[in-house]
Amino acid sequence: MEAKVLSQGFVRLVDSLPAYVDPKEGKLTDADAAIVQAARVSYGKGLKGYEQDKKLIKYLWSHEHTSPFEQVIVKFHISCPIFVARQWMRHRTGSYNELSGRYSVIPNKWYIPTHARVPDSINKQSSVDTNNDLLTQTMIEKINDCCKRAYETYKQLLDLGISREQARMVLPQNMFTEFYVTMSLRNWFHFLKLRLDDGAQYEMREYAKAILEMLKALAPIATTTFVESLEKK
Amino acid sequence: MEAKVLSQGFVRLVDSLPAYVDPKEGKLTDADAAIVQAARVSYGKGLKGYEQDKKLIKYLWSHEHTSPFEQVIVKFHISCPIFVARQWMRHRTGSYNELSGRYSVIPNKWYIPTHARVPDSINKQSSVDTNNDLLTQTMIEKINDCCKRAYETYKQLLDLGISREQARMVLPQNMFTEFYVTMSLRNWFHFLKLRLDDGAQYEMREYAKAILEMLKALAPIATTTFVESLEKK
Amino acid sequence: MEAKVLSQGFVRLVDSLPAYVDPKEGKLTDADAAIVQAARVSYGKGLKGYEQDKKLIKYLWSHEHTSPFEQVIVKFHISCPIFVARQWMRHRTGSYNELSGRYSVIPNKWYIPTHARVPDSINKQSSVDTNNDLLTQTMIEKINDCCKRAYETYKQLLDLGISREQARMVLPQNMFTEFYVTMSLRNWFHFLKLRLDDGAQYEMREYAKAILEMLKALAPIATTTFVESLEKK
Amino acid sequence: MEAKVLSQGFVRLVDSLPAYVDPKEGKLTDADAAIVQAARVSYGKGLKGYEQDKKLIKYLWSHEHTSPFEQVIVKFHISCPIFVARQWMRHRTGSYNELSGRYSVIPNKWYIPTHARVPDSINKQSSVDTNNDLLTQTMIEKINDCCKRAYETYKQLLDLGISREQARMVLPQNMFTEFYVTMSLRNWFHFLKLRLDDGAQYEMREYAKAILEMLKALAPIATTTFVESLEKK
Repeated sequence: MEAKVLSQGFVRLVDSLPAYVDPKEGKLTDADAAIVQAARVSYGKGLKGYEQDKKLIKYLWSHEHTSPFEQVIVKFHISCPIFVARQWMRHRTGSYNELSGRYSVIPNKWYIPTHARVPDSINKQSSVDTNNDLLTQTMIEKINDCCKRAYETYKQLLDLGISREQARMVLPQNMFTEFYVTMSLRNWFHFLKLRLDDGAQYEMREYAKAILEMLKALAPIATTTFVESLEKK
Repeated sequence: MEAKVLSQGFVRLVDSLPAYVDPKEGKLTDADAAIVQAARVSYGKGLKGYEQDKKLIKYLWSHEHTSPFEQVIVKFHISCPIFVARQWMRHRTGSYNELSGRYSVIPNKWYIPTHARVPDSINKQSSVDTNNDLLTQTMIEKINDCCKRAYETYKQLLDLGISREQARMVLPQNMFTEFYVTMSLRNWFHFLKLRLDDGAQYEMREYAKAILEMLKALAPIATTTFVESLEKK
Repeated sequence: MEAKVLSQGFVRLVDSLPAYVDPKEGKLTDADAAIVQAARVSYGKGLKGYEQDKKLIKYLWSHEHTSPFEQVIVKFHISCPIFVARQWMRHRTGSYNELSGRYSVIPNKWYIPTHARVPDSINKQSSVDTNNDLLTQTMIEKINDCCKRAYETYKQLLDLGISREQARMVLPQNMFTEFYVTMSLRNWFHFLKLRLDDGAQYEMREYAKAILEMLKALAPIATTTFVESLEKK
Repeated sequence: MEAKVLSQGFVRLVDSLPAYVDPKEGKLTDADAAIVQAARVSYGKGLKGYEQDKKLIKYLWSHEHTSPFEQVIVKFHISCPIFVARQWMRHRTGSYNELSGRYSVIPNKWYIPTHARVPDSINKQSSVDTNNDLLTQTMIEKINDCCKRAYETYKQLLDLGISREQARMVLPQNMFTEFYVTMSLRNWFHFLKLRLDDGAQYEMREYAKAILEMLKALAPIATTTFVESLEKK
């Protein structure tokens, strides 16, 4: 599974535990089943049939018995702007491996928003779309210009023989980076709770949405249950 | 993969990320390959061939670049005495689901050592084997007697209508319990470093040994590298 | 601050970050203030006055901006039955140091419930009080007898020269143990959310209540906000 | 305690658990004492005198009994370039609160290296100083120019009414940021082990050195023991 995000970035499902296989009609997917099996260690029992197992998953989540949701692990390969990566990596339960600007030359790929946003008058940290096309156009030009010049400086510094770890410091925070991230389903749900929220930055939410879709395919009962719990709030 | 431990207990490999498949001659196993691929995100490259990839794994471990070893996850189903489980669960990076004495009636299965051990005169927390067969015989009888009576009391309390969560408190710490545990390879290696050590309790070491063997099959290059790093110390 | 729990156990506040000092009239306690100061790094500002700071703490908690609540750390010394300690240590964000039965001889102190409880017909893992005094009396005698005999066996094994780590395995799960536990306020609130809940075992809830009282003294605004958020649910 | 780092940045000790008080002649500091007390819960005993306590700390560290070192917590206020902050926050056991570019206008303060560094021919991710003053001069001018223009663009975007969260994306990675970070002594030692290493980036090492000095004042026995263990390797 793979989805384009912010036109140049992506979310790619690398692997999961249990591994994804096409689900069978009327059967739990392997990921949903792994939750049930982990929970039933507590009872010393295994799977009991679709309806009963589904009911158990819903019961577990609604009663905050979250440990069985840690028994499903999902690994993604992400391409996103650095400012998104910085928010992402505040989620400390994940395992991360990121492209290093100390080892590699950073490719000339940066993020340009398609719409200007103005400060939200209610949520001060946030922003709202504007229909001002001229403002959008001006913003796009300014950001693009600034990034081009920064990338030129970066290349010049490298050409002069400056070390990569020094040269990269001029690169802006909308440069794309790549990383692998591995987290349990429980922690992905926590990530989504915060990052699907209206208060999250638009660019972050786009990644959260892509991840939500893939989790729905992997563990449809658990993920639907999680989404319903968000809506109740 | 499954191994009997302490005669009545077991270590069973439930699943892993990536899932285990029989390795191909001259190729990395999928788990070893996942370490390489995670590390090479840093370089923006993938697999490069057996010898070069093996060298990279050894380089990563010896230079404490441990994050790629977090990209392999291994889940076990364990049956062990409670006193072993208590030491195990001090490893806080694992995800655990344990049989609950609040939900279920605990089965009448307890651990009896096959050899008496006397305090180690050097390592005060530890113990050493004795050849005193009479002592062993006496110990076995006393432990067995004590556990039988405790289990009888437990059953009597349940028969009287006492709740499971109260009744179980009389059960001794050598009762067998069961749990699922999921951890990254990096954290399994940390677990093994402490639990294979001479200072660890004999019963714990037996579980550590069983886990080591299964990790060797899953990720032979990484695990051999880890074992060599222990021996250097 | 110290409180007796389950008559023979205790919860003792060892220390906190920031350290406790008697609060001044009309001022935030140091712990509440530390939350505000951490949050205002995000704005590049410090304290602003009681009412505004209180409002900020309430805003942060209700919007799940929980990271400032991690900047307050609280360390307790606990004495509790082993079965309580086992539930406690499932909270993996805490740092624990526990009395070891490998190093020390376990003192002859075990927990005897004052009331028999019967299975809860609704919450199957839980239990409810009974007014059956005869049942309580029978239970107390049976538990006490069983523990006495187990402790005698333990002492006999030690007297025979058996190692402490082997001998202790016959001891029941209501033996008292001791540990230090250090966690952030955020994680103490998570602990309390689960352990004050009706679904938690009575004995665990008693410890949770004692901790709640001490947190109220340390960080009254934050703790009151947390308690109100429980009630809303 | 506070130290200037990279001329414009700083490391400031905010607080610790236990809080710092000037040590008394011939006595352990409170932080060293807290390690001993946590370890002796395992024995059910407290402090025993300077020499014996010192010996215990050394024994614990050399035998990887690291849990007592988690019972000391240290909180710093840091001002550093974003690229340093990104490396720092990979240490996931810390609690962080950072200045947010979504809430606040980022001040015009960026880091300019005082010496050009060229790629290290041995450690490919690293760099070594050069004596080429002309190269240094050229580098400084280019970095400074680039950052000035980026900051101007940032201000222009804000003046146009663009939201802060969008405008900041053009700012380079050597902009200074600020954060609070709270970690246990055990995890600070792990941080230092990696970040004092020759393989770490120069700018990161400067922060690590400043932290090392403050830990030496707080917990001199533990910190000296840790430093000696690095040298043995």
